[in-house]
Amino acid sequence: MFTRIDHVGIAVADLDAAVALHEREYGMPVVHRETVTAQGVEAVLLDVGESHVELLRPLADDTPVGRFLARRGPGLHHVAYGVEDIEAALAQLGAQGIRLIDEVPRTGIRGSRVAFLHPSGSGSVLTEIVEPATFHP
Amino acid sequence: MFTRIDHVGIAVADLDAAVALHEREYGMPVVHRETVTAQGVEAVLLDVGESHVELLRPLADDTPVGRFLARRGPGLHHVAYGVEDIEAALAQLGAQGIRLIDEVPRTGIRGSRVAFLHPSGSGSVLTEIVEPATFHP
Repeated sequence: MFTRIDHVGIAVADLDAAVALHEREYGMPVVHRETVTAQGVEAVLLDVGESHVELLRPLADDTPVGRFLARRGPGLHHVAYGVEDIEAALAQLGAQGIRLIDEVPRTGIRGSRVAFLHPSGSGSVLTEIVEPATFHP
Repeated sequence: MFTRIDHVGIAVADLDAAVALHEREYGMPVVHRETVTAQGVEAVLLDVGESHVELLRPLADDTPVGRFLARRGPGLHHVAYGVEDIEAALAQLGAQGIRLIDEVPRTGIRGSRVAFLHPSGSGSVLTEIVEPATFHP
């Protein structure tokens, strides 16, 4: 069902420093930058193999990533697995009794369609599934 | 320098339940299971694309993963990036002033050679680099 690790999401307080670390020291190219107001984040995607690192800076304290930073500090926030057909994946996970945060897909970064599983059903790991847009303009 | 996400490491309290979730519900095949006494863990590797999920159960409370579980509960523990030449990668990271936990590689799971960067130099993300064994018996 899951084709690959699409990305790991990392909560950061200082986005410029985190981009510099991953781009200059780790050698990962920045491929996308987007402010996702609905999720309360500014996000930067960097390439590594068939996956990405997604750096997430909260737009305000009162956002999911803002609350994560206040509670736990910067660090690994979620893992996202790629799927080919997100409706089929959600139907299968739901039929298996996996608790979902998103019953239907929402629009994610770079035109992707995404859904989050609930940590209570995913071993306390915030887990996202991602069907990438077929065309990246 | 980093060729791919080699794996995400997940700290778990109930290894059987975590294996069942990833294998049965997520459809990831188990490819390896190993007790790494030196690191105080029982580890299970599952395949996803060119990467793995590494489930980590501490062998005792007084181990790094045991202390992580006591402090933060189950969840994402570290991210590991693949490299082709771990000595060259460590030399380059050291020359860039990145603080390392392991100045020289140690033996990791499945005959790999691994080293950890210090979270203080890696954006508070526990980060591992992995040169896989060329042959998996």
